[in-house]
Amino acid sequence: MKRLSVAALAVASIVTALPAAAQFAKPEDAVKYRKAAFTVMAAHFGRVGAMVQGKAPFDAAAAQSNIEIATTMSKLPLTAFGPGTDVGETRAKPNIWSDNAKFTAAGNKMVEEMAKLNVAAKSGNLDQIKAAFGPVGQSCKACHDDFRKE
Amino acid sequence: MKRLSVAALAVASIVTALPAAAQFAKPEDAVKYRKAAFTVMAAHFGRVGAMVQGKAPFDAAAAQSNIEIATTMSKLPLTAFGPGTDVGETRAKPNIWSDNAKFTAAGNKMVEEMAKLNVAAKSGNLDQIKAAFGPVGQSCKACHDDFRKE
Repeated sequence: MKRLSVAALAVASIVTALPAAAQFAKPEDAVKYRKAAFTVMAAHFGRVGAMVQGKAPFDAAAAQSNIEIATTMSKLPLTAFGPGTDVGETRAKPNIWSDNAKFTAAGNKMVEEMAKLNVAAKSGNLDQIKAAFGPVGQSCKACHDDFRKE
Repeated sequence: MKRLSVAALAVASIVTALPAAAQFAKPEDAVKYRKAAFTVMAAHFGRVGAMVQGKAPFDAAAAQSNIEIATTMSKLPLTAFGPGTDVGETRAKPNIWSDNAKFTAAGNKMVEEMAKLNVAAKSGNLDQIKAAFGPVGQSCKACHDDFRKE
């Protein structure tokens, strides 16, 4: 009976893994991809952060274009944390997989807050952008605190 | 007179470098960013390549979504090859900077061909996608042959 349960679990894991696994030839490719997506997202989010913090002059068109790219990027990393991708050089904590529902919720929170910032950026109004910027940063930090090694 | 020319050249270089330099705190950040953008682009372009080559079943919606992302990504790397970014772990050849007009043209060719593939992908027609896919791959290869170390 125990053997059967393990086998059933293994099959279930494979089925669950299929969509993510099908996207990447090797688990290392998923790690490289998600890190790359975070790198590009952080660069564009950071450029708007500089405007929000007054370290760079506000440029409405640039803010809009940067957040549009960050919004596209925000949806990508979550597709690359499939089962079996806890490999190689990664700061991903094991609870990403052991508490996956919480991790997915934390990731989706970031995606949602970025989408709101994208709406604000299209307004071209710095105050609206400032108001929507903070919650995105908080969603980044919350997920890093729980699921990323130092 | 020679000293003045050198000084004038230095000023001109700084002015030319400003837009790119302003985007990245350090040259290493530009290298990391452009590699990341290429990684994400290649992942999504490759997923459509698998469909084009019959290694994955054709899924019109997935092809469209992947090429949309690849098209967004295609415009990013060229912003991160500014003067002074020939640093660290990079396969960028020196002629990127010494023959920058040719490099920029080769990069723009890829952006243009990807945009055409994006139009084809929106048609949902595999034959149109196949026809537009090859020229993108050729534009990647041409630029790699001339400007990327093995």
